[in-house]
Amino acid sequence: MNTSIIRYVIGWVMVIEGLLMALPCAVAIVYGEGEGWYFAAVAAALLLGLLITRRRPSSNVFYIREGCVSTALCWIVLSLIGCLPFWLSGEIPSFTDALFETISGFTTTGASILSDVESLSYCMLFWRSFTHWIGGMGVLVFLLAVIQMPGGSHMNLMKAESPGPSVGKLRPKVGQTARILYLIYLALTVLEVLLLLAGRMPLFDALTTAFGSAGTGGFGIKNDSMMSYSPYIQWVVTVFMALFGVNFSVYYLLLFRKWKQAFQIEEVRKYFLILLGAILLVLFDLRDTGLAFWDALRHASFQVVSIMTTTGFATVDFNQWPQTARSVLVLLMFVGACAGSTGGGIKVSRIVVMIKTMFKELHTYVFPKSIRKIKIDGKPVEHEVVRGINVFFITFMLIFSFSVLGLSLEGKDLVTNFTAVAATFNNIGPGLELVGPTGNFGLFSPLSKYILMFDMLAGRLELFPMLLLLYPPCWRGALHRRRTEEARLS
Amino acid sequence: MNTSIIRYVIGWVMVIEGLLMALPCAVAIVYGEGEGWYFAAVAAALLLGLLITRRRPSSNVFYIREGCVSTALCWIVLSLIGCLPFWLSGEIPSFTDALFETISGFTTTGASILSDVESLSYCMLFWRSFTHWIGGMGVLVFLLAVIQMPGGSHMNLMKAESPGPSVGKLRPKVGQTARILYLIYLALTVLEVLLLLAGRMPLFDALTTAFGSAGTGGFGIKNDSMMSYSPYIQWVVTVFMALFGVNFSVYYLLLFRKWKQAFQIEEVRKYFLILLGAILLVLFDLRDTGLAFWDALRHASFQVVSIMTTTGFATVDFNQWPQTARSVLVLLMFVGACAGSTGGGIKVSRIVVMIKTMFKELHTYVFPKSIRKIKIDGKPVEHEVVRGINVFFITFMLIFSFSVLGLSLEGKDLVTNFTAVAATFNNIGPGLELVGPTGNFGLFSPLSKYILMFDMLAGRLELFPMLLLLYPPCWRGALHRRRTEEARLS
Repeated sequence: MNTSIIRYVIGWVMVIEGLLMALPCAVAIVYGEGEGWYFAAVAAALLLGLLITRRRPSSNVFYIREGCVSTALCWIVLSLIGCLPFWLSGEIPSFTDALFETISGFTTTGASILSDVESLSYCMLFWRSFTHWIGGMGVLVFLLAVIQMPGGSHMNLMKAESPGPSVGKLRPKVGQTARILYLIYLALTVLEVLLLLAGRMPLFDALTTAFGSAGTGGFGIKNDSMMSYSPYIQWVVTVFMALFGVNFSVYYLLLFRKWKQAFQIEEVRKYFLILLGAILLVLFDLRDTGLAFWDALRHASFQVVSIMTTTGFATVDFNQWPQTARSVLVLLMFVGACAGSTGGGIKVSRIVVMIKTMFKELHTYVFPKSIRKIKIDGKPVEHEVVRGINVFFITFMLIFSFSVLGLSLEGKDLVTNFTAVAATFNNIGPGLELVGPTGNFGLFSPLSKYILMFDMLAGRLELFPMLLLLYPPCWRGALHRRRTEEARLS
Repeated sequence: MNTSIIRYVIGWVMVIEGLLMALPCAVAIVYGEGEGWYFAAVAAALLLGLLITRRRPSSNVFYIREGCVSTALCWIVLSLIGCLPFWLSGEIPSFTDALFETISGFTTTGASILSDVESLSYCMLFWRSFTHWIGGMGVLVFLLAVIQMPGGSHMNLMKAESPGPSVGKLRPKVGQTARILYLIYLALTVLEVLLLLAGRMPLFDALTTAFGSAGTGGFGIKNDSMMSYSPYIQWVVTVFMALFGVNFSVYYLLLFRKWKQAFQIEEVRKYFLILLGAILLVLFDLRDTGLAFWDALRHASFQVVSIMTTTGFATVDFNQWPQTARSVLVLLMFVGACAGSTGGGIKVSRIVVMIKTMFKELHTYVFPKSIRKIKIDGKPVEHEVVRGINVFFITFMLIFSFSVLGLSLEGKDLVTNFTAVAATFNNIGPGLELVGPTGNFGLFSPLSKYILMFDMLAGRLELFPMLLLLYPPCWRGALHRRRTEEARLS
């Protein structure tokens, strides 16, 4: 393995994180908070990063393995540095908790260990929500957008970090694609902030809420998440959560006025269909709760969109909802948003391919000689893509099962364990029972917290980068090759 | 579709079922029960079946589609006829309940709608347990063992009915294989009966218990399942449940003194490893329950073996167990027994291949040019088999999710719905909470019961035969071909 280039990439990520910490510093200055110094101190990471990146990598070899390992390590480094202000300032006294909260932020999960969010200082709240925004589009994508990377590192970095089975190569040059994606992302975020301000939301609230919905994260700055905001604000957030769950190629096509193509993307149509169906089902199940129709519609829409896009905001304690609604939400947790969006989960396109795989199998039972291929958007799906989706799903369920087993060692109830893993692995945030919208993840043991941290990172990075870190041959090969290289040189 | 041969197969199944009903008749005579007449009356199915089989099929065409459809229809007809004695005698007054109980019997599930089993007459109890024994090895396998079928129907019938991904073609002639399998099955059952009798179990109890464990079914004849029997009897049942969960090729190899080969089958080794691991984990979790070590060991072994082999007997109300033990049992429900055994679930061999698929994927990340194949028993697994397992797993999870959603419409809690589907779809029997070992399935609405009946049949017949019945092109093709044939003839 080419460790020098991995070091180089990590260096750049540290530089970027150091620079980004200027924003919470600014917030601290505005509100006159002394906690800002912790961010300034940690920005020393910036200097260390600059030192590391001064030495160019000795080799430009950058295969998919290097892409995965550097992505996984970058996200870990990002979180380790990002959690320092919480920990050093004592606002989150336990290191494990601070790390959990930061990983939850960067992976856009939004699962919190805090029972009283409102006691945090403004700059900490800002940083907490800002990690969502950074993680939503991906920090390496940002890197590609602003820095000329050596060798063939572009595609393999983007592949390892971007969610979903198909990385839309919108432009021939990866750097250009990354820049366009970030511009769309920024534009939508700004639009949301403006619409929230129009609803008389304070600027600070508007910014953090927009960060949370743009990254499909879900950290709120209030203890009751979004419950106390006005219906207008709740509707705006609903719409924007749904928009950020859409495959970004749609916006790209709209940008270039390819209206017809934009509205024909199968995944996006199915995504909205599932959202609609789920909202109707939940609405029907809420009929006996005594809510007025429009209130029920608002709460059903908000919760369904929030869970399916894996955001995790809440306007109501859905843990108290009737069972059908709860089950619908649990199933939606696994479906997730569109590929190529900021959302998590298995992704709509994978689910669509999986359902088509089942029907194709039935078809071959009836017509054994048929060689029909699975089609998406009218085009046949490559065999390799279908296989990749199968492997993804199998790996997903294996990690899921072992995580539930790991959590069960603590003796908490099955629904708590099951939905805690579902909510972190799919990067949603709240689950049911003890980890419902009014609960939090602080009650877990450190072991369980580290399992859930792994799940958050694995879920965000599409499983394999994180698994590779734990796969000995990945490192054995690296050592072996370095040794042979040294032997060759000497 | 060749409907004439499907009719022919169904006719034979009716004949066999009519003949098999002679046994509960005999039980009724022994105990002097008038209810025996209901079996005698239903044995009229025998005559109807004879009428149907008098006319030979007009065509011998028998593809995999015909195999699946006739298997699915046979099992439905089998259950429809088999439930009549329960219903007509009024011992199970509701037809839906009687059908549920019978399907649960034939599919070797063992999920009961009865709250008071002991109120049934002896002949009904006998028939109820005997359906497990018939369903365990498969009624069509029996048909193949005793009757010369026309055309190429053998392999496609056996494939559709036998559990697991690899139907061991033990002998070149399918009829021979079927006969050997049934002989092993019979011999093991007789051995269990003898050992149970040696523990002073009454003959009737010994027979029904042996039927239940041989078929990995789980219907007991006591309201407390196996709780009140002696430790000796419980250990005997534990051992035999484990033995019936083993791939039957092992016994075949042992029969022909191929000791080495028999003990080297990877699936069986992994099966015992998982059993052992699970028992230890449960045992560890039971440390604070105040049970003596040997009692804890006995209960842990019994429950783990019962759930993993998908039998469903219980010596203790494991719904009251601590959470780790409960979670272990829920996970085991999905693993299931070995392929080629009488047990259900996903099957150990599939799980093994799935885990190896994950590692193979990691391997290709590290060595992109490697073309290592997945190996089982040291031999590479065909690509088509791996693909089949992937498709099976995807279809399994899709049916599972939709079933849980369907059950949730009633408003029962998530654990009840989840484990009710898990326990029926994997052909186990009891789940947790309301459907735990001391609960029963009678509390569900008719809609939920029909969903669970579908799941039991789908689980037992490896999903696709039942799905094909619901897949319109399967029938459209049949109508179309008949029309073209008629056009050709006229």
